[in-house]
Amino acid sequence: MPFPDLVHPALDLYESAVDLPDDFAAFWDATLAQARQAGGAVEVEPAQTTLKLVEVFDVTFPGFGGHPVKGWLVLPKDRQGRLPLIAQYVGYGGGRGFPHELLHWAASGFAYFRMDTRGQGSGWSTGATPDPVGSTSQIPGVMTKGILNREDYYYRRLFTDGVRAIDALVGQHFVDPDRIAVCGGSQGGGIALAVAGIDARVKAVMPDVPFLCDFPRAVRVAGRDPYGEIVRFLAQHRDKKDKVFETLRYFDGVNFARQSQAAALFSVALMDDICPPSTVYGAFKAFAGTDKTIIDYEFNNHEGGGPFQDRQQMAWLCERFGV
Amino acid sequence: MPFPDLVHPALDLYESAVDLPDDFAAFWDATLAQARQAGGAVEVEPAQTTLKLVEVFDVTFPGFGGHPVKGWLVLPKDRQGRLPLIAQYVGYGGGRGFPHELLHWAASGFAYFRMDTRGQGSGWSTGATPDPVGSTSQIPGVMTKGILNREDYYYRRLFTDGVRAIDALVGQHFVDPDRIAVCGGSQGGGIALAVAGIDARVKAVMPDVPFLCDFPRAVRVAGRDPYGEIVRFLAQHRDKKDKVFETLRYFDGVNFARQSQAAALFSVALMDDICPPSTVYGAFKAFAGTDKTIIDYEFNNHEGGGPFQDRQQMAWLCERFGV
Amino acid sequence: MPFPDLVHPALDLYESAVDLPDDFAAFWDATLAQARQAGGAVEVEPAQTTLKLVEVFDVTFPGFGGHPVKGWLVLPKDRQGRLPLIAQYVGYGGGRGFPHELLHWAASGFAYFRMDTRGQGSGWSTGATPDPVGSTSQIPGVMTKGILNREDYYYRRLFTDGVRAIDALVGQHFVDPDRIAVCGGSQGGGIALAVAGIDARVKAVMPDVPFLCDFPRAVRVAGRDPYGEIVRFLAQHRDKKDKVFETLRYFDGVNFARQSQAAALFSVALMDDICPPSTVYGAFKAFAGTDKTIIDYEFNNHEGGGPFQDRQQMAWLCERFGV
Amino acid sequence: MPFPDLVHPALDLYESAVDLPDDFAAFWDATLAQARQAGGAVEVEPAQTTLKLVEVFDVTFPGFGGHPVKGWLVLPKDRQGRLPLIAQYVGYGGGRGFPHELLHWAASGFAYFRMDTRGQGSGWSTGATPDPVGSTSQIPGVMTKGILNREDYYYRRLFTDGVRAIDALVGQHFVDPDRIAVCGGSQGGGIALAVAGIDARVKAVMPDVPFLCDFPRAVRVAGRDPYGEIVRFLAQHRDKKDKVFETLRYFDGVNFARQSQAAALFSVALMDDICPPSTVYGAFKAFAGTDKTIIDYEFNNHEGGGPFQDRQQMAWLCERFGV
Amino acid sequence: MPFPDLVHPALDLYESAVDLPDDFAAFWDATLAQARQAGGAVEVEPAQTTLKLVEVFDVTFPGFGGHPVKGWLVLPKDRQGRLPLIAQYVGYGGGRGFPHELLHWAASGFAYFRMDTRGQGSGWSTGATPDPVGSTSQIPGVMTKGILNREDYYYRRLFTDGVRAIDALVGQHFVDPDRIAVCGGSQGGGIALAVAGIDARVKAVMPDVPFLCDFPRAVRVAGRDPYGEIVRFLAQHRDKKDKVFETLRYFDGVNFARQSQAAALFSVALMDDICPPSTVYGAFKAFAGTDKTIIDYEFNNHEGGGPFQDRQQMAWLCERFGV
Amino acid sequence: MPFPDLVHPALDLYESAVDLPDDFAAFWDATLAQARQAGGAVEVEPAQTTLKLVEVFDVTFPGFGGHPVKGWLVLPKDRQGRLPLIAQYVGYGGGRGFPHELLHWAASGFAYFRMDTRGQGSGWSTGATPDPVGSTSQIPGVMTKGILNREDYYYRRLFTDGVRAIDALVGQHFVDPDRIAVCGGSQGGGIALAVAGIDARVKAVMPDVPFLCDFPRAVRVAGRDPYGEIVRFLAQHRDKKDKVFETLRYFDGVNFARQSQAAALFSVALMDDICPPSTVYGAFKAFAGTDKTIIDYEFNNHEGGGPFQDRQQMAWLCERFGV
Repeated sequence: MPFPDLVHPALDLYESAVDLPDDFAAFWDATLAQARQAGGAVEVEPAQTTLKLVEVFDVTFPGFGGHPVKGWLVLPKDRQGRLPLIAQYVGYGGGRGFPHELLHWAASGFAYFRMDTRGQGSGWSTGATPDPVGSTSQIPGVMTKGILNREDYYYRRLFTDGVRAIDALVGQHFVDPDRIAVCGGSQGGGIALAVAGIDARVKAVMPDVPFLCDFPRAVRVAGRDPYGEIVRFLAQHRDKKDKVFETLRYFDGVNFARQSQAAALFSVALMDDICPPSTVYGAFKAFAGTDKTIIDYEFNNHEGGGPFQDRQQMAWLCERFGV
Repeated sequence: MPFPDLVHPALDLYESAVDLPDDFAAFWDATLAQARQAGGAVEVEPAQTTLKLVEVFDVTFPGFGGHPVKGWLVLPKDRQGRLPLIAQYVGYGGGRGFPHELLHWAASGFAYFRMDTRGQGSGWSTGATPDPVGSTSQIPGVMTKGILNREDYYYRRLFTDGVRAIDALVGQHFVDPDRIAVCGGSQGGGIALAVAGIDARVKAVMPDVPFLCDFPRAVRVAGRDPYGEIVRFLAQHRDKKDKVFETLRYFDGVNFARQSQAAALFSVALMDDICPPSTVYGAFKAFAGTDKTIIDYEFNNHEGGGPFQDRQQMAWLCERFGV
Repeated sequence: MPFPDLVHPALDLYESAVDLPDDFAAFWDATLAQARQAGGAVEVEPAQTTLKLVEVFDVTFPGFGGHPVKGWLVLPKDRQGRLPLIAQYVGYGGGRGFPHELLHWAASGFAYFRMDTRGQGSGWSTGATPDPVGSTSQIPGVMTKGILNREDYYYRRLFTDGVRAIDALVGQHFVDPDRIAVCGGSQGGGIALAVAGIDARVKAVMPDVPFLCDFPRAVRVAGRDPYGEIVRFLAQHRDKKDKVFETLRYFDGVNFARQSQAAALFSVALMDDICPPSTVYGAFKAFAGTDKTIIDYEFNNHEGGGPFQDRQQMAWLCERFGV
Repeated sequence: MPFPDLVHPALDLYESAVDLPDDFAAFWDATLAQARQAGGAVEVEPAQTTLKLVEVFDVTFPGFGGHPVKGWLVLPKDRQGRLPLIAQYVGYGGGRGFPHELLHWAASGFAYFRMDTRGQGSGWSTGATPDPVGSTSQIPGVMTKGILNREDYYYRRLFTDGVRAIDALVGQHFVDPDRIAVCGGSQGGGIALAVAGIDARVKAVMPDVPFLCDFPRAVRVAGRDPYGEIVRFLAQHRDKKDKVFETLRYFDGVNFARQSQAAALFSVALMDDICPPSTVYGAFKAFAGTDKTIIDYEFNNHEGGGPFQDRQQMAWLCERFGV
Repeated sequence: MPFPDLVHPALDLYESAVDLPDDFAAFWDATLAQARQAGGAVEVEPAQTTLKLVEVFDVTFPGFGGHPVKGWLVLPKDRQGRLPLIAQYVGYGGGRGFPHELLHWAASGFAYFRMDTRGQGSGWSTGATPDPVGSTSQIPGVMTKGILNREDYYYRRLFTDGVRAIDALVGQHFVDPDRIAVCGGSQGGGIALAVAGIDARVKAVMPDVPFLCDFPRAVRVAGRDPYGEIVRFLAQHRDKKDKVFETLRYFDGVNFARQSQAAALFSVALMDDICPPSTVYGAFKAFAGTDKTIIDYEFNNHEGGGPFQDRQQMAWLCERFGV
Repeated sequence: MPFPDLVHPALDLYESAVDLPDDFAAFWDATLAQARQAGGAVEVEPAQTTLKLVEVFDVTFPGFGGHPVKGWLVLPKDRQGRLPLIAQYVGYGGGRGFPHELLHWAASGFAYFRMDTRGQGSGWSTGATPDPVGSTSQIPGVMTKGILNREDYYYRRLFTDGVRAIDALVGQHFVDPDRIAVCGGSQGGGIALAVAGIDARVKAVMPDVPFLCDFPRAVRVAGRDPYGEIVRFLAQHRDKKDKVFETLRYFDGVNFARQSQAAALFSVALMDDICPPSTVYGAFKAFAGTDKTIIDYEFNNHEGGGPFQDRQQMAWLCERFGV
């Protein structure tokens, strides 16, 4: 129960020391260009449910490498004009699940999209998207999948999927391209930060207890997985520390935060031993946009603000997007 | 991971040996009469949310002893005529939480009510309903609160609240009194069974991995709390075994099942070490209504069918209530 | 095994920052006056045991609200004149148990009283005293029972019982009213501190590894329950932090310590992760009486000094009370 | 929480298959003869305490090999004639502790002796008796100390100490040699059974949740240490199974039970995963004396009956010894 | 510590009910043909070590799909003629490690080859072989990688690698093609069984506590991972049970055992809760070869016989191969 | 996973405060003289194995008190002249195991000796050496065996055995007395340090993650056993702290390090919670020899460098000994 990491006031003073590679933006520009070049079709199929107040669509879009990626799109049945879009990315191990599992954004008048996570989708909710790419020797999980080379690293593919989801939706007739938000908790928050750092179309980002931030500190402070996958990898591959951290610089939420001008609503839990609070503050402090807020949950572990934060998000985003 | 209890085919053959007191129905008739006599006002106040597709009401109704009990009522904004009602009771330790946390019933066209749980509402979701009654010596939790006397037992009050919730809603203009369903998971499933056993207005009951069934077996088989609260109580109060089981007969889901003629959709998880599957089968086998179905989740622990079962429920209930 | 909290010399320097409410004494004066006004009879019934060297009495006295509270009184069979009285309060979850379980005080020539704990008495020893008062939403256990209002908080009743026990015994013919001591371990030590802080008749207090001290630090440092009940409550009721700590100020051992002029023998365990040593030192430092001693057990967790401390207590108290 | 072993009615039917060596009695006769031949002085020194109702003596007597063994003797201060003697042996890892820790036998009019345990006395209470004998390769703890040879096995020395304690006390002027009882919980119960099986002067034996019974079954059923020490030994010494069980036959409570004509009061806990109930029943069934009783504690683990059983013992023994 | 599965005599009587697909052999023939068609070069490079009594070679050979797979080959420096070959496969999560880690086969006069495990090699020893193939949604680890289709399942590739290793070595001038043995513990034992079931060149197989046998029982009995990966997959993908077990039939050690005529030395641990003993006996009973032996380790968990079994293997194989 | 102790740069700056007794060297001189005086024969018997490249001998030599101590000696079969000797001591709980378990030193051209550990040899590998000396009250394990007196402490005997092993081997015709090295991991590293501190014939010492260093800090920082044995001893024997630390000064690796002029290759793991890194640095800093190196394994717990460190050792020692 005691705090696993810095508390205030030390927490306020913490600045991440993550190194920003000179070619960070170039790497992501090239990655995205390559993904767009791979092309692929977007499919938006109506899905059968008992839900009457919303319409649900089973979406397939081309992600990294043109690989097909799934997602659920949920729209208010009774809608007019172009809707603000909110894309949600999901936490480690999960997948897009079923459309009825999260309805509060559509019920608040948003076009809501929940992106599946390639190759995961078995741990706490189901997914339907393969990751067709293999790996060098790895620890079970995706944290060390391809970690010895930035080109091969799993998150290169997943973050690209996150941007390509926006590509797929922004041109739909029901989406207002000037009101695009991304959100997610834990890994989903990390993806949201990455997408907001790569893609300037994103006007608002809401990372909850984000994962994938401030790696050099995170792997040394976190008390539980998934950061521990990297620790266990290094415990065996005792000679690979430099390579691993060289790769991770290109995927660090702190570096993405340094690129984004979106409005931002972060949350952090001070008893979080999965995503230690200093690593979240590290990203928040580095966030370049000036309309930024962070909400502390002092007595929470990684569950963070839960439904309290949902309510904060709904109010904050409705205000910003005039909903 | 191994199965903690009977598996098929032994599971199919299992019959609960719980004793049905001669005055079981009389006890509950008297309890309910007493609660109704205590009276109290029903309040249905509109609640502020960002949700646009539904209307939310903060309901207060008189439960056992006339004590005020809270709940959220969520109605489709765009509705016509009387709606089928579904009342959900929640699991051990939780409370009614926030209205946006579960929207799929309202989104499917139901009047959806989630009842708060007196004195709980702190463990995994928040509640707002006190239990103004004290207790003799007890183990932390409610399982042994007042357990030495059937009049004092906590669940006498909570089950009565469950019926009084129906009382409060059945007369509302938007509710169709001929289409009343109750549901819930774990403790919520136990309450649903009790309400269906006491109150013939209930036409459909959907207990998921129900708790509070087949106590004499459950306390001897369950590997984890909350049944363990009773074990720990008896471990100290070594001379109170007879009294405890005498009380529990009046609160056993098996005995409620024997009273109900509702349509029933049960679920059970074969790796459940909180609510052992034989105890669920014990109630299912004893269920008096003839339109009854049970769905097995072989490789699940107490999470049971989760969103898979939600979908089963929506399809099953929409069919029965013509939604 | 490592130390979960401050060690020396930092421990020596630690001063609790707990705030003393202006109306602290007034609150307790009013509480006690109200309890005394509620009245109720004291019953002292001989109890049947095989014990021949002592006489045992089953005592019932009126506690908070006049509610009947039980206790065991054990007197040397062969006694002369008025005896020094020692009242012991018991640890979290326990009750008064059986009279034969602790005989060393009576065997040393004291009138020994072990007070039961209302509503507990099931966790590690049995009790026989109800707590007839209910609660708002709470975490299992008593730490958050009524915590949103100082009038309703569980410990208001229990501490009052502790003083009312002295009221019940001080007038008995075998008790010397000038030699009254209180003691207890963990929760019992917290009650002893409270009673010594409220009631100037108490001339000596011996809190062992006391609980219920320095709440704001304790809930943030303790590694295990029961302080964790408050953490879990706040983890759900994320908006209630201020209310909770406002209540706790009136029940903090540090504030009681500031009121007492009794002689005091504290003990503390430096590896205690239930009652962190800094919180005990916080109370000890604040203790107003000048005849005060604290004994450190460096390599102990919450078991503290155990029988070593019993011996310290017997020697220390016999000396002070001329036994 | 579920039962770790047989329950009724299977438990009633269980008979231990432990083999009784032909030379069992001869082995123990020779062992005892050898210990008595080693000789050594008995010292009974008054001890300083604050206790006024009893007199305490620090006893040293010659045990196995003439090695000095300690114990506390507690006598009612006010006594007349010869007292019944009760010798208590203590549980695994503990020692004689302090005399004030258990006073209910002396307070009931008995000469009470608590024997120290050679080489243990550090785990949960302190001891002061060395075991001056070494060991072949062993698992930490005493279960496998010298286990490859019955002459070297640790319990050969400890059980002999138990009989030699009777030797030391039976001749004291305050002891009635016709009223000698032995008792103990867990390991203490195992020693008590052994002493009662070796020494016909013992007229009553009260083993609580006894350890060291029915080894072949115990090591295969027990879920926790200390039986597990033997399992871990055999897990390494994969070729020593036959030797180990050959030794253990000479130290099995079932075989001692087969030798005793004392009156016996056993207790057993049905959820005990340290001393599985079938192993206790195995000894009880085999017990040769006809005045034998066993008390079940259905919902207890190894704590067994605790103070409830103390009361049973006091009543049972006072009746048998006319106290 | 208690036995997690059947014990003797029930264990002796157990027969696996795993279904043998009609096209089992055809599936593997086709798989192997396809792998051989993919071709690829074998490289045998001398490796630098301080070892003087042996020569070490870093081998790369084409596995499934022609993918390069690594291994260490260790030969006695002083050798004459063709040597018997022993290929070892390694346990779950590990890789080929360093050549000095296991020298007893080369020191006994064998050509010893330790094959790397594609995509693993990070959990307890290091590997250097990628698995270039991706996966549908999976649980971390390889147990559910591609599990929805027998063509895609991870073990199709790994077992093929195992046979292709023999292909690579059998033609080397220092190998005697008539004396080829395979061995391994846990996953390594499962691979060894598969290779012996596919490839008749294998004359001796020594599976220790083999994994990957009798899947339908194993996933329902095993208390720990890795079988649990499949349980967790099915706990989420509640609708995929049939597909999963349909795939697993083609990879079950019981079915491979039914195909092999090699001499076999199995080992099994009766307290093994990773690879339950009945699943090992299931494979042993089904083993078609008539020169078969199984060695029980009654008091061991998954560590099994360890160095005791090494010695059994060395003696058994030296005898069979005339070394 | 977080670091359990100091990290760099604080780790670099750490200096142990362990006190060096004035008579430290005198104590060990006397101890050794006494052991040598006890005498005893050295036996070197050929052992039967299947190993062909090496010769194995079963050695018995007189250790402390002349007690017979076992070890395995492994020599290259094909050897010329005198070989460098490396003696390895083993980790806590283990024994010498089987000769085939570690062959890389002999395969590199060394005379390799693995000493058994008296009285241990049951926890993770087997031993065959008794410790014929008993103990005062102790915690299971050897850490507190005889801890109240430096003459009686277990490690006095074990460290002496370590030196006497050198005595036994140095005179054998195949050993080069000018090239003697000692090594070991954990407890084995602690013994190696002690031997190098006592015996100037040792020219190289390679302690891996050494145990038994900097006791006063170690027992207060280590998160797991075996240091915890001392903590638990002191938790009961609350009055023995001074005696315990007085004894430990004579057995502290820091003090042995201060005596040695050998070349030294240490390893340390920064996540080691059994042998905290500061305690290893404490010994390394104090090491008197000037040819000293320490290798950090940042992301490892007590497994340390494993086979990576083996390779470091082989290269380092071959260079120093010209092999």
